[in-house]
Amino acid sequence: MAAEQIIEARLTYVDGAFAPGVRVQVDAAGRIAAVGPLPQPPTRRFEGCALLPGFVNAHSHAFQRGLRGLGESYPCGVGSFWTWREAMYALVESLDRAQMRRLCEQAFVEMLACGITTVGEFHYLHHEDAGALDFAFDDVVIEAAAAVGIRLVLLASYYRTGGIGRPLAGGQRRFATPSVARFTEQVDALQRRVEPRAQSVAIAPHSVRAVPPEDFIALCREAEARQLPVHVHLEEQRREVEECVAALGCSPMEWVLDHVPVGPRFTAIHATHATPARLQRWLLAGAGVCLCPITEGNLGDGIADAPAMLAAGGRLCLGTDSNVRLDMLEELRWLEFAQRLRSESRGVFADAAGRLAPRLLESATRCGAAALGVDAGAIEPGRHADFVAIDLEHPSLAGCTAETLLAALILGSGGECVREVCVGGTWRAVRGDR
Amino acid sequence: MAAEQIIEARLTYVDGAFAPGVRVQVDAAGRIAAVGPLPQPPTRRFEGCALLPGFVNAHSHAFQRGLRGLGESYPCGVGSFWTWREAMYALVESLDRAQMRRLCEQAFVEMLACGITTVGEFHYLHHEDAGALDFAFDDVVIEAAAAVGIRLVLLASYYRTGGIGRPLAGGQRRFATPSVARFTEQVDALQRRVEPRAQSVAIAPHSVRAVPPEDFIALCREAEARQLPVHVHLEEQRREVEECVAALGCSPMEWVLDHVPVGPRFTAIHATHATPARLQRWLLAGAGVCLCPITEGNLGDGIADAPAMLAAGGRLCLGTDSNVRLDMLEELRWLEFAQRLRSESRGVFADAAGRLAPRLLESATRCGAAALGVDAGAIEPGRHADFVAIDLEHPSLAGCTAETLLAALILGSGGECVREVCVGGTWRAVRGDR
Repeated sequence: MAAEQIIEARLTYVDGAFAPGVRVQVDAAGRIAAVGPLPQPPTRRFEGCALLPGFVNAHSHAFQRGLRGLGESYPCGVGSFWTWREAMYALVESLDRAQMRRLCEQAFVEMLACGITTVGEFHYLHHEDAGALDFAFDDVVIEAAAAVGIRLVLLASYYRTGGIGRPLAGGQRRFATPSVARFTEQVDALQRRVEPRAQSVAIAPHSVRAVPPEDFIALCREAEARQLPVHVHLEEQRREVEECVAALGCSPMEWVLDHVPVGPRFTAIHATHATPARLQRWLLAGAGVCLCPITEGNLGDGIADAPAMLAAGGRLCLGTDSNVRLDMLEELRWLEFAQRLRSESRGVFADAAGRLAPRLLESATRCGAAALGVDAGAIEPGRHADFVAIDLEHPSLAGCTAETLLAALILGSGGECVREVCVGGTWRAVRGDR
Repeated sequence: MAAEQIIEARLTYVDGAFAPGVRVQVDAAGRIAAVGPLPQPPTRRFEGCALLPGFVNAHSHAFQRGLRGLGESYPCGVGSFWTWREAMYALVESLDRAQMRRLCEQAFVEMLACGITTVGEFHYLHHEDAGALDFAFDDVVIEAAAAVGIRLVLLASYYRTGGIGRPLAGGQRRFATPSVARFTEQVDALQRRVEPRAQSVAIAPHSVRAVPPEDFIALCREAEARQLPVHVHLEEQRREVEECVAALGCSPMEWVLDHVPVGPRFTAIHATHATPARLQRWLLAGAGVCLCPITEGNLGDGIADAPAMLAAGGRLCLGTDSNVRLDMLEELRWLEFAQRLRSESRGVFADAAGRLAPRLLESATRCGAAALGVDAGAIEPGRHADFVAIDLEHPSLAGCTAETLLAALILGSGGECVREVCVGGTWRAVRGDR
């Protein structure tokens, strides 16, 4: 258990702006107790740093870190998402417990290093022994996150079909969840298993192509009973939409909207090819969307209709997904830049007052925390003491003022300017000084 | 003058692949004398590093580094390239010699830190005193590059009109080149002024909108006489194309093709909105194109038709342009990713054998060197001893083999994995260890 702390950085991000002279009181349970010009002297000063809420990565498949540099060569690197998936399945079939652990740790270490303090691990690679349905890799993810010290939301994924109405094949058998009953038993076991101060569990029907309709409905009922977040891959690829229309008569997002009570606990991952009409239905129900700009660029998914999402007042969060590259500031930058390339205009994510950077930051903090159901994403009393300390002396930030810092950070810097991170009151240095 | 060196890294990039056991002999003039399994013992070992040719940044406006964090707020950050340009002009009007020097140094320091060893500085901000046409900032750029230790190609830019047939206005007067005669006098003076081992001069008619037709033709004649590279901004923005069609009856690229002898010394910057037909004419003439993915994303230019460029066998190089973000690996990654988003397929830059990363790397090395007319961009005898030493222990490269390293580097890492750089035989550490 961490001791109580009073933290003061040169600048602290509170209420959408950087301010000097802010002290943050952290209690022994690792939560923020008070924020402001507190009378107590700081126990920890960051003279050369700016303090931000730690970034929240709402969508990760940690094991895919093992494809780095591998998923880009002939034949899988030339083609499409679907050829890439073959490389990913080959990786899946090759992993034992030790390798899975190493890949998870590699991914989580890199996440912390770029300022990510919470990861939503959308975890479908359950089994070391596919025949035994051992769920051994669920434990591996939990242990790896605890060892690295990153906050974890384990989005336990349900995966039963290898396409609508098709059996699992090859590597997919390692994803298998045989029934909703067996799966919810596992969810209950995981909820008992996790470390409650830094870990929690949520429910993730993998996709409409991997979950039979009746199971999807039952899973959402279980999530409702437990008040857990629900994440689902929706409309990342045109072929995914087409196959759903052919089999079920509507798009995946429409199918979900028509069959389960979509609400604020729901997050659609990608929604790259969702039309404005169904996006509006989804978002007006209070559900959110998670975009994964680097992975969507890497996989050639296409560019989502963010203006339609923003017009509906949508809660948009951010994920590193395949972890091909881990840098949350780069994710934020290309969240906006991909939209600029699409629309040939600037400031797509700017709010009504023309403020861009604060709105972008919300995606990687407050919106991600809301999507994962964790008290993180802001430097406010009651939230977890999850911070990222930015090195103001870093060359990429030379010349910044308190007013331009956030935009410089998001549009012009990267993980290399992160000096330390804090998860639940525990600090970790992530790089030496230059 | 540097002493003769024999360098051996764990891996060295030669002939399109990483190999162990390669020694590189560097002569006292800072050039590569020999490469291979040389008998001489190394004077410098990089046990934990891979050696690549230093990156060549073929297009930069160093002073725009001063806009970092500033070009993203209301009103200039919300709108278009043209509203952003107003912010850039405001910066232009504010700069004195000391500020210009500081911004150039900031940009060049960041370039070295991410592995860029040569910069093509497309330099149009000539004057401290616009009334006196003093060309004072030309010296500033030369001095800043020498002080930082980066190889410089000063692309002296000609800028005479504030739009086709329109006089210069406001900040543009600091760009003024009053006549081809006065400009070529300045080019000759710069050629005498530069440090010949690390600096050279080229000619850059700014754009068809900023150079009167007869001056453009005369400049290309002068460049031909001096055998200098010619760089010109072409077709970055739709409005630029439309205004040219309205005024001159054809697009900017077509106008250049129709009026000057375009050939291998020519490079078009951006060509975002060039059609396949004119791109084919341009590239079949042997001229190249310089793409600037991060800036084009930041400015919302749009996505160039790289498949058409590649189909014509085009020499494509890479620039950091506005320097809003300085990371050459991120530039390379998004060169490919922007194309994937546009085409919804993967491996756009892959060669006929399906090799992606080596082809991408050529853009940032050999093709850039060719565009700038410098003997750099490859670890080969006769070339400048310009290297980047990649830290193989960096977490972003964990798990790589010699075969997957280049793809992991380009698709999954960034400037933070650069440990040291070498320009003309002189080494510089750019970061401490983690």
